[in-house]
Amino acid sequence: MKRVGVIGYSGATDRPPVSDLRELCLELGRKLAENGFVIFNGGRDGVMELVSQGARKAGGTVVGILPDGEAGNPYLSVSIKTGLDSQMRSFILLRNMDVVVSIGGEIGTAIEILGAYALGKPVILLRGTGGWTDRIAQVLIDGKYLDSRKITEVHQVWTIEEAIDVIGQLP
Amino acid sequence: MKRVGVIGYSGATDRPPVSDLRELCLELGRKLAENGFVIFNGGRDGVMELVSQGARKAGGTVVGILPDGEAGNPYLSVSIKTGLDSQMRSFILLRNMDVVVSIGGEIGTAIEILGAYALGKPVILLRGTGGWTDRIAQVLIDGKYLDSRKITEVHQVWTIEEAIDVIGQLP
Amino acid sequence: MKRVGVIGYSGATDRPPVSDLRELCLELGRKLAENGFVIFNGGRDGVMELVSQGARKAGGTVVGILPDGEAGNPYLSVSIKTGLDSQMRSFILLRNMDVVVSIGGEIGTAIEILGAYALGKPVILLRGTGGWTDRIAQVLIDGKYLDSRKITEVHQVWTIEEAIDVIGQLP
Amino acid sequence: MKRVGVIGYSGATDRPPVSDLRELCLELGRKLAENGFVIFNGGRDGVMELVSQGARKAGGTVVGILPDGEAGNPYLSVSIKTGLDSQMRSFILLRNMDVVVSIGGEIGTAIEILGAYALGKPVILLRGTGGWTDRIAQVLIDGKYLDSRKITEVHQVWTIEEAIDVIGQLP
Repeated sequence: MKRVGVIGYSGATDRPPVSDLRELCLELGRKLAENGFVIFNGGRDGVMELVSQGARKAGGTVVGILPDGEAGNPYLSVSIKTGLDSQMRSFILLRNMDVVVSIGGEIGTAIEILGAYALGKPVILLRGTGGWTDRIAQVLIDGKYLDSRKITEVHQVWTIEEAIDVIGQLP
Repeated sequence: MKRVGVIGYSGATDRPPVSDLRELCLELGRKLAENGFVIFNGGRDGVMELVSQGARKAGGTVVGILPDGEAGNPYLSVSIKTGLDSQMRSFILLRNMDVVVSIGGEIGTAIEILGAYALGKPVILLRGTGGWTDRIAQVLIDGKYLDSRKITEVHQVWTIEEAIDVIGQLP
Repeated sequence: MKRVGVIGYSGATDRPPVSDLRELCLELGRKLAENGFVIFNGGRDGVMELVSQGARKAGGTVVGILPDGEAGNPYLSVSIKTGLDSQMRSFILLRNMDVVVSIGGEIGTAIEILGAYALGKPVILLRGTGGWTDRIAQVLIDGKYLDSRKITEVHQVWTIEEAIDVIGQLP
Repeated sequence: MKRVGVIGYSGATDRPPVSDLRELCLELGRKLAENGFVIFNGGRDGVMELVSQGARKAGGTVVGILPDGEAGNPYLSVSIKTGLDSQMRSFILLRNMDVVVSIGGEIGTAIEILGAYALGKPVILLRGTGGWTDRIAQVLIDGKYLDSRKITEVHQVWTIEEAIDVIGQLP
């Protein structure tokens, strides 16, 4: 049972940039659930909430790993309180993923992309979603690594179907 | 949906002291599940494994919060890797409980009993199970507190039924 | 260069129970410094502050490991911010001690006494100082252990001189 | 008393890329010490060790915040064991800095650059030192931010003198 992390923009779901990604996030959640993947995310609003909503509607399981002081969005199957600040919480979240899909995102997402790579978790950039998901693509080494140690691969995809394919092909 | 933590002896389930508590742990897991409580524990062997086994057999949900390097027992509904040592992991575990039931236990259990109290989580000592569950009862202040601040109450019960009753009556 | 932890009551230094231990704490700090030990503590008020004050006056070095939101008392040589809550912070503090001296104390001190033992750090109870330092002495196994695994020893002393002797004799 | 973090390549100090930065690191450590700054770093080898060596020779103070299992380089004034993995350890390290200077670096350094920004700590990129210090400069927003929230500034300098100047001018 693969554990797929989804990271990206936080913030209100009815305002840009999150609202512009609404259908994409709901659809990604739905497809991940339909393929039997368990979703792990930060449990908050923004991309996390929309992907959770899509997944739960399709009968999926969503685990939210929360930072201190957050209650979690209403679509989580299980919410885990860490009592940690956002960044340290992210490193517990990352440990529970087999692979991570990134959508847009500000500095917290950037830290999670790099953190996933540092822990040897493959990263899938859903290109065209803006923020650090597109920005980090500009500085990949050989188009797929985040440092000279080549710990794991960063994949670039442009559609949800491609993302699901990459996840399916991972060991 | 109340989240009930269960803490106690780790170690092989077919050897004392855990084997002596086998039926008790299976039954506690079953009763917690039947009453609709979600169980949180440390995800390892010993009391944690037997309570998980009892709960799952009765259709319950068990979340295991694992220390670094542990795979978790086979009866967990969801296992969360923290990457932390046993003790720091315990403090993440404790944050996710509304109340904790303690059964026997060595130093790790003692830390969790005191940690639960420090975080304001009511503690239920299932007396007669040995270890720190019985030992800590000897030094309670006014029979129910663990320090002069009286942060929360420590309850002493002798049967599973009493434990379920206390949990049910908590706000 | 031995690292000696000192734990105990927090709270205002001019009010009981801390004010009653004022001379004892200042003297302990002074003696630890004179013997060349580096002091590690939680960096806050109460026993921590008085021991730090005594040590600094005698030219000693005091490292305070702070929980989130605390600035540290004015007598620290080095203060380390952890960003963690009090309890998780305590487990980082404990890792940096070769031995710990306990003076009075509420639930946080109790967790540190047990945590030190769990990490294999010898504990010295300065008896007669009240709180958990005296309370835990009532439930020691064979007068010196905190669980059946006998991970390390708990020493009971009644004077600062004895405490310094025990520290000096540790490997 | 400003606390200056220094981050960058780990690895043997007598092999590239660290050996190529030897004089630069020693000199940076010396200048930071001469200006009365306290240095915080990860306490390990590579850039951390050379900067520590330079600083100590000039009478400076160096605090190393260590990940689990590391003993620390021989030039630390104080070493703090966290018991945490490298990445979570980095977030404790970052909390203790007023500003951070980055030299070269692989994925761990990249995480620390972004983490410093996320925590609102100004970052100084010592350009021309390779690795993520130069790579991150390619994706700065408006030449000085790491996300659209503009939490703090990223400064680019080409000499140690400029770095010292920037540190001196920070509030």
